[in-house]
Amino acid sequence: MKTTLVKTLFRETQQYLGTDVKISGWIRTIRDSKTFGFIEINDGSFFKNVQIVFDDSLENFKAISKLPISSSLSIIGTIVETPGAKQPFEIKAKEIIIEGMSNSDYPLQKKRHSFEYLRTIAHLRPRSNAFSAVFRVRSVVAHAIHQFFFERGFVYVHTPIITGSDCEGAGEMFKVTTLDLDNVPKNEDGSIDYSEDFFGKETNLTVSGQLEGEIFALSHRNIYTFGPTFRAENSYTGRHASEFWMIEPEMAFADLEDNMQLAEDMLKYIIKFTLENAPEEMEFFNQFIDKGLLERLNNILTSDFGKVTYTEAVDMLIKSGVEFEYPVEWGIDLQTEHERYLTEQIFKKPVFVTNYPKEIKAFYMRVNEDQKTVAAMDLLVPGIGELIGGSQREERYENLLGRIKELDLNPEDYWWYLELRKYGETKHSGFGLGFERAIMYLTGMGNIRDVLPFPRTPKTAEF
Amino acid sequence: MKTTLVKTLFRETQQYLGTDVKISGWIRTIRDSKTFGFIEINDGSFFKNVQIVFDDSLENFKAISKLPISSSLSIIGTIVETPGAKQPFEIKAKEIIIEGMSNSDYPLQKKRHSFEYLRTIAHLRPRSNAFSAVFRVRSVVAHAIHQFFFERGFVYVHTPIITGSDCEGAGEMFKVTTLDLDNVPKNEDGSIDYSEDFFGKETNLTVSGQLEGEIFALSHRNIYTFGPTFRAENSYTGRHASEFWMIEPEMAFADLEDNMQLAEDMLKYIIKFTLENAPEEMEFFNQFIDKGLLERLNNILTSDFGKVTYTEAVDMLIKSGVEFEYPVEWGIDLQTEHERYLTEQIFKKPVFVTNYPKEIKAFYMRVNEDQKTVAAMDLLVPGIGELIGGSQREERYENLLGRIKELDLNPEDYWWYLELRKYGETKHSGFGLGFERAIMYLTGMGNIRDVLPFPRTPKTAEF
Repeated sequence: MKTTLVKTLFRETQQYLGTDVKISGWIRTIRDSKTFGFIEINDGSFFKNVQIVFDDSLENFKAISKLPISSSLSIIGTIVETPGAKQPFEIKAKEIIIEGMSNSDYPLQKKRHSFEYLRTIAHLRPRSNAFSAVFRVRSVVAHAIHQFFFERGFVYVHTPIITGSDCEGAGEMFKVTTLDLDNVPKNEDGSIDYSEDFFGKETNLTVSGQLEGEIFALSHRNIYTFGPTFRAENSYTGRHASEFWMIEPEMAFADLEDNMQLAEDMLKYIIKFTLENAPEEMEFFNQFIDKGLLERLNNILTSDFGKVTYTEAVDMLIKSGVEFEYPVEWGIDLQTEHERYLTEQIFKKPVFVTNYPKEIKAFYMRVNEDQKTVAAMDLLVPGIGELIGGSQREERYENLLGRIKELDLNPEDYWWYLELRKYGETKHSGFGLGFERAIMYLTGMGNIRDVLPFPRTPKTAEF
Repeated sequence: MKTTLVKTLFRETQQYLGTDVKISGWIRTIRDSKTFGFIEINDGSFFKNVQIVFDDSLENFKAISKLPISSSLSIIGTIVETPGAKQPFEIKAKEIIIEGMSNSDYPLQKKRHSFEYLRTIAHLRPRSNAFSAVFRVRSVVAHAIHQFFFERGFVYVHTPIITGSDCEGAGEMFKVTTLDLDNVPKNEDGSIDYSEDFFGKETNLTVSGQLEGEIFALSHRNIYTFGPTFRAENSYTGRHASEFWMIEPEMAFADLEDNMQLAEDMLKYIIKFTLENAPEEMEFFNQFIDKGLLERLNNILTSDFGKVTYTEAVDMLIKSGVEFEYPVEWGIDLQTEHERYLTEQIFKKPVFVTNYPKEIKAFYMRVNEDQKTVAAMDLLVPGIGELIGGSQREERYENLLGRIKELDLNPEDYWWYLELRKYGETKHSGFGLGFERAIMYLTGMGNIRDVLPFPRTPKTAEF
């Protein structure tokens, strides 16, 4: 007999009522009296458990009654309606097969554990209610993103993880090497002999696929990346991880307005898709993790995002009279406190801040006519601050070369990036969305370590 | 006026006939006489070009006539039916905007270039016919995979890229470090002081997400990974890359039969999805890259995959009387020549080979009752050989521990992997599909470097 997923039973209960099914899963709770008992089974496909009723007509009744939680079972039984009960149905067991008996020292007993403790048992925490939900939602959101871009004809590109250039300029990088660290080969002048390294030169882990993404935007028009990126920064905050996933769309023939429209459409699509495909999980987060979550997300679906220039935003912050920890003046990089005040207090909805001073943004952003600002955009959202950062890219060869020199970068490192501007260049734009930050936003989880299956942070690379 | 994708015009021609549209793209060919001209435009969203007809009623007629190929344009014009012509429609231009003029030294002129040469200009090769098609198909196949697993309720898991253990045992690994290679810190005994490294210990790039995948199969039941993996092997063949993407599903409550069924269903789904969603590209590959491609793929859709044990397969190869380069006897690892003979000559369709000698397979595979073989499966396909490798996993604690010791591995390195067998273990199975190998199989492209956007191979990490 083929097994049925618990998710299927809950979603299509009506057509299963009265029929016999086989399900498999793990015991969440078990209680019994002398002649009958109840088991709550979870099979990981669905947030809710299904209740099994069993009695001493089963040969192995005694053995079942003594099973520790987390033991794995297969159950053959009849789906029976349970009017008035919390769940719409239960299963009357005809046969229960003990697949694997758990040890009684199973660490996830009924009492609540701290998220900190659960991180130390990352091989078991996906079985807890909260993490079971987090990682199902993570999967649903990933699919929402692929589906969104697929429907719009965007091409998914795998940009390289190992890069031979450190020209991405977005922070500290991890080195990738096969050199013998016990005995690093040296040149005559004492420098490291990278010709002996695997790639014959210095290589690092990527911090962004954007520059390579632009290559594909200029051949395939609308593209996106979705892959892991790395930062070797000693940040111990709850918002930073050393390894995280990023989504980076890039569109040819698109300006900053098109870019903002895409970001808004994408975010709304993801939220809608997640609410529709994981309603039980989202209800749980709303109840136990973040009380205002569903209201905030539903609010976003129905509001048009705000738009404000950096210059206007700075004026607003100054005029607010609020004393921020970091004083506001034109030219500063906005801090999270400023971002949150803008989106939570002033706009009360997501807001794009555009046209930042060029000094605080990357070399590849398109310089505006005022020569002081660049066509950048950050999307700020309530509860988080910056969720998305993007820009229109500098497509004018001479301007780009000028910026590279101005910032004392070496044009030779950017030969192919510059050449893109020689062969049919056009305006183009893109942005980056940190996947984990999006999951935190959608679940209300407060620490990035709790939305990553196996977080990598300074001094931590377990499992 | 919003731009329309060329793909949309081709797919929904009827509803656009007679209407005005705006499209943007790059010039593939241009020819003109004194008073009118033709431009073939490609916008990267679709395999085919759209023909633009323009004449000297346009203000900038002269300037347009002189444009080098690969210049970028936006065109506003009317969709006109072209009965009897190769394309079902063309666009009569009302306005042409020159977005970016290409240089006349654009390397991708009309003459054919070798794939080897095109690899050296990986920033431009996605604009060529063949690579434009390869990378659109790559994207379609990726989506097919996500869609297949989503429909079946599998949870997508991001297993870690940086691993703190080298216990995956599947080949040479790349080191990841932030140590100063000029001056590697040492302990008093002369060994490397990894406490000063970013993660406080030795770390590498992952070669497989399987072990972590098993964690999630035992919490979420049916899961898959889809991410980059790495091999620091000095292989210079056309089938090996140092960085490639892999899909690894893992199912709890599933044995080897279930595993084979999933692999067969998945492969058929991918082929069907790709033929439906990229018919023009597949037609191109069939015509110019691999003449028998479509016949072979269609043949797979309608055939049940063969199944044969390793022992039977070895018998068949010996009885065939064929002189192989590597002689066949029980106990050898099958070589590509053997695999291809089995699938191409004997079965003439995809075939699963099961139950390999335990000596040539990994420690985590479930030992069969004969104590000589393990519940492994390799899927062999015509034209390629091994496409998928998988197994039922050893779920019995004592047996697993025994195998680990037998192979002189350190049980402490596997503490969490062993613990999974203590808390509600059950039979479970999974497999790995090399994504690039699947793309080669689906496109007929013969070199893995030509299906990776930016291939990483020994001594090569450009772009």
